[in-house]
Amino acid sequence: MFGYAGRLLRVNLSDRKIEIESLDEGTARKYIGGSGLAGYFLVNETGVETDPLGPENLLIMMAGPLTGTRVPTSGRHAIVAKSPLTGIWGESDVGGTWGATLKRAGFDGIIVSGISDTPVYLLIDEDGTQILDARELWGKDTYETDKAIKHLHGEKAVTACIGQAGERLVKFAAVMTDGKDARAAGRCGMGAVMGSKKLKAIAVRGNSRVKCADEEALTRSLKEVVPKMVQNAKGLSTYGTAGGLPTMEFLGDFPIKNWSLGKWEEQAKRISGQAVAERMLTGRYHCAACPIGCGREVRIDSGKYAPVEGAGPEYETLAMLGANVLVDDLEAICKANEMCNRYGLDTISTGGVIGYAFEAFERGFLTIEDTDGLRLEWGSADVLLSLIDKIARREGLGDRMAEGTRAFARSLGPRAIEFAVETKGLDFPAHDPRAYNSVGLAYATSARGACHLSGFTHNFEKTLNMPELGYPEVQDRFGVEGKGRFTALLQDLMCMMDSLKLCKFSLSAGIKLTQCVEWLNIVTGWDVSAEEFMRTGERLFNMKRMYNVKHGTSRKDDTLPYRILTSRRKEGGAATNLPPLGELLSQYYEHRGWDEFGVPKPEKLKELGLA
Amino acid sequence: MFGYAGRLLRVNLSDRKIEIESLDEGTARKYIGGSGLAGYFLVNETGVETDPLGPENLLIMMAGPLTGTRVPTSGRHAIVAKSPLTGIWGESDVGGTWGATLKRAGFDGIIVSGISDTPVYLLIDEDGTQILDARELWGKDTYETDKAIKHLHGEKAVTACIGQAGERLVKFAAVMTDGKDARAAGRCGMGAVMGSKKLKAIAVRGNSRVKCADEEALTRSLKEVVPKMVQNAKGLSTYGTAGGLPTMEFLGDFPIKNWSLGKWEEQAKRISGQAVAERMLTGRYHCAACPIGCGREVRIDSGKYAPVEGAGPEYETLAMLGANVLVDDLEAICKANEMCNRYGLDTISTGGVIGYAFEAFERGFLTIEDTDGLRLEWGSADVLLSLIDKIARREGLGDRMAEGTRAFARSLGPRAIEFAVETKGLDFPAHDPRAYNSVGLAYATSARGACHLSGFTHNFEKTLNMPELGYPEVQDRFGVEGKGRFTALLQDLMCMMDSLKLCKFSLSAGIKLTQCVEWLNIVTGWDVSAEEFMRTGERLFNMKRMYNVKHGTSRKDDTLPYRILTSRRKEGGAATNLPPLGELLSQYYEHRGWDEFGVPKPEKLKELGLA
Repeated sequence: MFGYAGRLLRVNLSDRKIEIESLDEGTARKYIGGSGLAGYFLVNETGVETDPLGPENLLIMMAGPLTGTRVPTSGRHAIVAKSPLTGIWGESDVGGTWGATLKRAGFDGIIVSGISDTPVYLLIDEDGTQILDARELWGKDTYETDKAIKHLHGEKAVTACIGQAGERLVKFAAVMTDGKDARAAGRCGMGAVMGSKKLKAIAVRGNSRVKCADEEALTRSLKEVVPKMVQNAKGLSTYGTAGGLPTMEFLGDFPIKNWSLGKWEEQAKRISGQAVAERMLTGRYHCAACPIGCGREVRIDSGKYAPVEGAGPEYETLAMLGANVLVDDLEAICKANEMCNRYGLDTISTGGVIGYAFEAFERGFLTIEDTDGLRLEWGSADVLLSLIDKIARREGLGDRMAEGTRAFARSLGPRAIEFAVETKGLDFPAHDPRAYNSVGLAYATSARGACHLSGFTHNFEKTLNMPELGYPEVQDRFGVEGKGRFTALLQDLMCMMDSLKLCKFSLSAGIKLTQCVEWLNIVTGWDVSAEEFMRTGERLFNMKRMYNVKHGTSRKDDTLPYRILTSRRKEGGAATNLPPLGELLSQYYEHRGWDEFGVPKPEKLKELGLA
Repeated sequence: MFGYAGRLLRVNLSDRKIEIESLDEGTARKYIGGSGLAGYFLVNETGVETDPLGPENLLIMMAGPLTGTRVPTSGRHAIVAKSPLTGIWGESDVGGTWGATLKRAGFDGIIVSGISDTPVYLLIDEDGTQILDARELWGKDTYETDKAIKHLHGEKAVTACIGQAGERLVKFAAVMTDGKDARAAGRCGMGAVMGSKKLKAIAVRGNSRVKCADEEALTRSLKEVVPKMVQNAKGLSTYGTAGGLPTMEFLGDFPIKNWSLGKWEEQAKRISGQAVAERMLTGRYHCAACPIGCGREVRIDSGKYAPVEGAGPEYETLAMLGANVLVDDLEAICKANEMCNRYGLDTISTGGVIGYAFEAFERGFLTIEDTDGLRLEWGSADVLLSLIDKIARREGLGDRMAEGTRAFARSLGPRAIEFAVETKGLDFPAHDPRAYNSVGLAYATSARGACHLSGFTHNFEKTLNMPELGYPEVQDRFGVEGKGRFTALLQDLMCMMDSLKLCKFSLSAGIKLTQCVEWLNIVTGWDVSAEEFMRTGERLFNMKRMYNVKHGTSRKDDTLPYRILTSRRKEGGAATNLPPLGELLSQYYEHRGWDEFGVPKPEKLKELGLA
């Protein structure tokens, strides 16, 4: 199969059994790759009874058919497991070079089950797979772990690993790749799943070429498309994802003080991608096959927060570890970012739970006794860094916060859930549904909980159009009519992006749906139509939904935090809008062929081949 | 004090202590009477630790300053207690002649505490109060109880009593008055509170005249106003509350099949007030001092459901025990109504929980084993009557249903709450928030849970205007802008109606706010302005809110069922509207001076004298 290695690696850490399974073309075309194909295994092999941190949970790392090829922005893989943070569908998609290397080592994906007695790591290359002793690595941070493995197995060993947070089962621990370039599979606690298996790292070395059905056509396409992408993505290249930060603030899309404020203009400028570029940028980081290079490399040599060296903060990180806790000290945020990267923590959930804790302290739900004497005051960078430490080490209050915002909030009494900003247990990323109704709908319905990437709709209500889906113009972000269809279609498309795998910033760089379809066909030799492409995305989305439905998810869980539903931002670019959730869901369920409880109807499942 | 007896009766059933407490004018003017004055005692004397069915809960029966006077529609009293159904503010307002008789016996209200060892009843008249043995009455239905007490103490003994449902602590048991004329204090399980105290009945005899400050002015006012009221309320007199039933169906305001359908036109005609008038009406029933007489007296002598004799079904009853369970057999509904009256069951919650059970059975949440072989099929009158029996007797499935829809639904698993139609644990009455946005807001925020009477807004979005409050015209029922203020003002007004006490149908009969104020002043001799009047209503509403806030209520509880928020009626007069709850609450909290969690701000409480 072109584009595919055709092989999946199964590793059971309980009995140290390693098996290679072949991937058939029918399954590949039906589930594509990435989170789609990973989901196929998760759905079939785990269920309601599966403890996310038990041996039966699967940790599935999956590349896509485009991963490892020259297709631009295809250097990604998905990590899928039942989430220990949310108890339902867990998915984290990440760039870097790990996925492409895995493909070049001859595998589309790895499915890890069981729990090892002692810490181990995997070493995978074309010569085979070894389960190696990681006792020496246990306790190390992710930068150190990557360095140690490279020291042992050479610079070409690319790692995905956990830090101390994953080891300690912090519920929002990340799996990090590429050492101090630090690409994070941040969301849903995949690092805790890895930690529960006593699996410190997966190192891969690979040299094979990923086969493409029509190399010439690909060359022609790249020649035409890549220069345009580079041109279109100039802002992203120059300033990284945080180049858009002042715009997000302007639009009222930006989380400020645990989502309670509407404006933070001057401070936003101080923590923008432009400020990063001026003050500490040393270079750009490109994931495999990426012509854009939005990744930041930074260095801080002096001052209170030095040293910092390696990956710089993304938009999400600057927003959640900055604005959301009212910290506008850019050096401090860079430090917080590096700490999260090293410990292996999702910067979004970390910023979310810290912002929550600040508010809980302010409102008296937490006292100075709960915090071991720490005054959780808005804007305190020292407290921010201290709490990151405590969470990663599960020390004192950090141990409670390490359970995630939902569980932490519930432990503080019924009233305390009022200002917990999460959906289905996943903290909000740094886009506000009050700034885009479709984002509210996407957060409420995305399989993994509040997620800006499984809909990515905000970009299509701000700068992008999608004529192939019937949206020749940028949409009205405060509109209501038609948002159900719009959101559902983009979720279906994003399911495909997460399966191929293609970075969503390729869309920001001007790539259209038809181009994605063309690349899939060029690589695989298939004749997938745009219709089949979207239908497949719909299948994958419904597959994920059904996983959640089996776990009890329904309309009652498709919700938004009270603050987002009821409290206006009051000033700024989204001062008055509140997403009318019931109306949006009604349109959405109808478009999706789901019943009034948000359950896909039998005929819809049959139509999608999921019955 | 004119209008007031100036005395409250305290009865502690645990130690059989009877005390008379005087009511001072300051408290009276601040809390007026009815549910307002009763609330003053509930708030001060019960709290979070109070078990609604324990000795510390108070059962407070309270008339108002107008009760017992000639002021039209003033023949009402309130029953207030911590609700065993909802665990929060419990209030039930009722007509009849009991309240007026209590006033004539020299009391404004009765506060019952404690629990008797054995069943007792109270006999209250101008000669004193006796706690009498009710062992012979225990087990009797409310018609029989009334008859037995009248047999013992004369026809002038007016009773408020419970039936078997209250004795068995059915969580939505009613307190019934006036025997087979059957006026029900239906909501919030006041009958269970009475049952928990082993108090079967309170019989009152009274002959004193309730003093009015300016009898002449009252006579003049009545001469002018009453004929107009009679004229305006002709429809209500002729066809009762159910005369409007076909209109409710037409407007899309009508509960059909557990709130899942949009139209039921032909069937609605068959169970309308007009049909009652044609087929079984024998007379009208007037509460004390009422010129309208909307109460129905019916008689069915033959057929499957005979005999039925006494009170006929109200609009709410026909809707909830008819349309909501798809029963369109008018005789059967009359029978169901009489059974509920005799057992002492709230017909609204009874219809609500039975409709819920029908749907749970249809959806497989209940099996034939759960139902003791009963097939819970929509439209089955026999099953309806059988379930009423089972609930009142707490037999089999009825025992579970007797806990109320919320608890019953929760016992069936998380998905089963999706179609439970209640707010704060109180079943919806028969008006659909999808037909009026203000009704949604009122249900979400009313202190006792889903309640059409504490806002009564639907009437002002259909037929009534209120120029004194700035609404010179009937409102747009699907409008959004300004609904927060509109709903809050009407809730404040209704708090006053429930305190004075005046029947809300006086408003339907054309009475304006200024007239209510005038009557209050004529009776009491006070100089209450319209502003003080409304401010007092606001105080009472906030007092009730604060009682709930102390019990943990906040924004999270100010909600509507998923069906109402998300599922359209699809056809009929409210085919597409869904109340935009977040937006409505946002306006409402701001108007009320409540914070984003729905908690009255300290400055608001201070302003209202509630700090």
